[in-house]
Amino acid sequence: MPNVNFQGRDIISIEDFTQQEINYILDTSRSMEPIAKNGSDMLKRKILATLFFEPSTRTRLSFEAAMLKLGGNNIGFAEAEIASVKKGENLADTIRTVQNYADIIALRHPLEGAAKLAAEFSNVPIINAGTGAEEHPTQALIDLYTIRKEKGKIDGLKIAVIGDLRYGRTVHSLAYALAKYNVELTLISPETLKMRREVLNIIQTKIPVAEEPNLEKIIPQTDVLYVTRIQKERFPDAAEYAKVKGTYRIDLKTLKNAKKDLTILHPLPRIDEIVPEVDATPQARYFQQAWNGTVVRMALLALVLGATK
Amino acid sequence: MPNVNFQGRDIISIEDFTQQEINYILDTSRSMEPIAKNGSDMLKRKILATLFFEPSTRTRLSFEAAMLKLGGNNIGFAEAEIASVKKGENLADTIRTVQNYADIIALRHPLEGAAKLAAEFSNVPIINAGTGAEEHPTQALIDLYTIRKEKGKIDGLKIAVIGDLRYGRTVHSLAYALAKYNVELTLISPETLKMRREVLNIIQTKIPVAEEPNLEKIIPQTDVLYVTRIQKERFPDAAEYAKVKGTYRIDLKTLKNAKKDLTILHPLPRIDEIVPEVDATPQARYFQQAWNGTVVRMALLALVLGATK
Amino acid sequence: MPNVNFQGRDIISIEDFTQQEINYILDTSRSMEPIAKNGSDMLKRKILATLFFEPSTRTRLSFEAAMLKLGGNNIGFAEAEIASVKKGENLADTIRTVQNYADIIALRHPLEGAAKLAAEFSNVPIINAGTGAEEHPTQALIDLYTIRKEKGKIDGLKIAVIGDLRYGRTVHSLAYALAKYNVELTLISPETLKMRREVLNIIQTKIPVAEEPNLEKIIPQTDVLYVTRIQKERFPDAAEYAKVKGTYRIDLKTLKNAKKDLTILHPLPRIDEIVPEVDATPQARYFQQAWNGTVVRMALLALVLGATK
Repeated sequence: MPNVNFQGRDIISIEDFTQQEINYILDTSRSMEPIAKNGSDMLKRKILATLFFEPSTRTRLSFEAAMLKLGGNNIGFAEAEIASVKKGENLADTIRTVQNYADIIALRHPLEGAAKLAAEFSNVPIINAGTGAEEHPTQALIDLYTIRKEKGKIDGLKIAVIGDLRYGRTVHSLAYALAKYNVELTLISPETLKMRREVLNIIQTKIPVAEEPNLEKIIPQTDVLYVTRIQKERFPDAAEYAKVKGTYRIDLKTLKNAKKDLTILHPLPRIDEIVPEVDATPQARYFQQAWNGTVVRMALLALVLGATK
Repeated sequence: MPNVNFQGRDIISIEDFTQQEINYILDTSRSMEPIAKNGSDMLKRKILATLFFEPSTRTRLSFEAAMLKLGGNNIGFAEAEIASVKKGENLADTIRTVQNYADIIALRHPLEGAAKLAAEFSNVPIINAGTGAEEHPTQALIDLYTIRKEKGKIDGLKIAVIGDLRYGRTVHSLAYALAKYNVELTLISPETLKMRREVLNIIQTKIPVAEEPNLEKIIPQTDVLYVTRIQKERFPDAAEYAKVKGTYRIDLKTLKNAKKDLTILHPLPRIDEIVPEVDATPQARYFQQAWNGTVVRMALLALVLGATK
Repeated sequence: MPNVNFQGRDIISIEDFTQQEINYILDTSRSMEPIAKNGSDMLKRKILATLFFEPSTRTRLSFEAAMLKLGGNNIGFAEAEIASVKKGENLADTIRTVQNYADIIALRHPLEGAAKLAAEFSNVPIINAGTGAEEHPTQALIDLYTIRKEKGKIDGLKIAVIGDLRYGRTVHSLAYALAKYNVELTLISPETLKMRREVLNIIQTKIPVAEEPNLEKIIPQTDVLYVTRIQKERFPDAAEYAKVKGTYRIDLKTLKNAKKDLTILHPLPRIDEIVPEVDATPQARYFQQAWNGTVVRMALLALVLGATK
């Protein structure tokens, strides 16, 4: 049993965790699988506040389900419009108020650094549920958990990440997380949506990273293909978008040369970067990710609230 | 005890149920009356997801209260604006995600067929909480339950339905439901809001149905008067609306020639099609319908989740 | 033990309560402090409906947390947009529906008198969670509780209220509440935002009230300084606003001549009428008010639902 203690800790950035700590979270997540099915009273009388200053049904419902399955309860809001922010209140004041109502806070916010700021003012633990374009640590942990569950390991895998690597926050947290393991990472994206230089600088010092515009070329040796949305509005003009759209769409043809045990992941929601025909293939594991989301968030809530060790 | 089993079944359309099955649901609803007052732990650790892609406070709160009274819990959203739909996600993906968070899903959606589609993709039961202009099966069951509770029976009654019979979804589900019993049905509506031909075709083969523009003529022999909203915006011009408005408004004068034990129902919300003076009459039973809504939904949740037989 | 009984009572206006009754609520609130930390099952199987026709995250979350800490549960909506009101339903009908789903209703509404009207139609107790510009009785009780907790008493204190005394509903309820005790009240505001004449007329018959535009002059002898927001949009022109803004802002300079044990309160949210530097002073107690909000609301819920005596 490693010497790790999460009680009272904030979950702000995946970079705050050692590989040993991450493995511990993943092990705890695995132990949550039966509890996610049958429920428990581990967090009875505990309250989670889900403060979502931008909407994210998926993440919010996942946190709330996790809390309920542990016997806890939820309060919160789903978008900034219905919050005191409308009256001009700053985040620090909101946090110093809500800490009186809840035992733990999950914060979603459009601004970089919001979770860090919240943690400075809060006397209850803060979990970053997605802030700015940089951080979505619980999603990264879910991705790691899914990879380990599907493959039995993380080390030694060839992992390709495809799509919008510039603006997608899940992909940045995932890149930092993967760089803590021995994986080979290939980054596939249109020129204008390449991985940010500052992320690249950090992960390249730790693991082999290749940038490769051509998915076909690397698909045969890929173990895990992590697909993200390419949003039209990120492109300066429609012609540019139309040009790359087809190249970064996964269909049955894409899978022809893929390994039989390739694992395709996607943080969801998806638009049309994976065609529906792929859903029925054994490689498609993105809907299972949602289940894993619940167990990983159960583990985090239980660990931070000291209900499990 | 009839040989019916609801565990794991979807509740999509009233047409999917035999009279025997409906009676069984109504009997189970009756057994929920004391539980609705005192609460229970029948659905402890079960989670209902209320996915409301269009707002309906009444229906949503009724489902959530039903779940809480059975000891269960709720997650969900109250309108599409705060859902992933904003990001362009299709319904099938939303369902395949949420099925990982909840044991059962209540779906409200503006599109015809949405509940059916959801059920095809879901591995947890789907309850149709109102979709398109055709189906609102739980409301129809509440209407039947209320009629039986007020009258002691359904068979043999003379039932008049008045208002917008063209666009109101509750009235279509109710018509299908009543056609499974031995009732005489009178349809009262302005010319432009007459019952849809496709509904009429089906119910006319089963029960006597009369279309009658004049309420006064039939009120003396009516046992149940089911009133629905006439929405101004359904009329091509304001003059047309002004012309019919008064004719389809229930007031104390309307009730002069009515039976003493007439039962007036309304799915609510009402605008001005029943004047407030009527609320105090013993015939007005529409606010009691809301209570019945909770017990019928409790019955459905308990039956589908296998907590009662 | 005084002869007071709150079971089944509505909480509409602070004016409905005698000093003895208010003291009883404050005593019960104090007894809720340990329960607010550890939780209880006092209101197990009870449901609170939070019907917020205008958004107020702070008040709503506080009520919901109070209910959960007592073992109860919540249903409701956070803004009128997602309510049946959109369909034109009147408040009386909404209440007569929701009373079937919940054991108690907390109502927030933009219109004066809404809570009173709701109580007339409801067969479950109504708690006014802020209506119109006149009434916010639970906030007034929280203010009194906070003053008594900080000062050990209410009688004999010199209390100054500063800011918008014309439109702020919390300040009106607070003035009525303080007038039931032996306090000296000073009202500090710009000319255009002076306390309403009708409030003044009532409280002046009971306690000494002084109107004083100059905070500096009275700060040395003040025991409690109650600060409220001055909203720009209340001023006829921007120049007028700019002129008064600085005068009614609390900063470290303001506190130089203040008593060491001055208590600064604010109903929150604050914009910039108290500068952040003040937050760190021992006089700043406004974030503790939020905690007190939970215990006072727990007391009210428990008293009205008959779970405590």
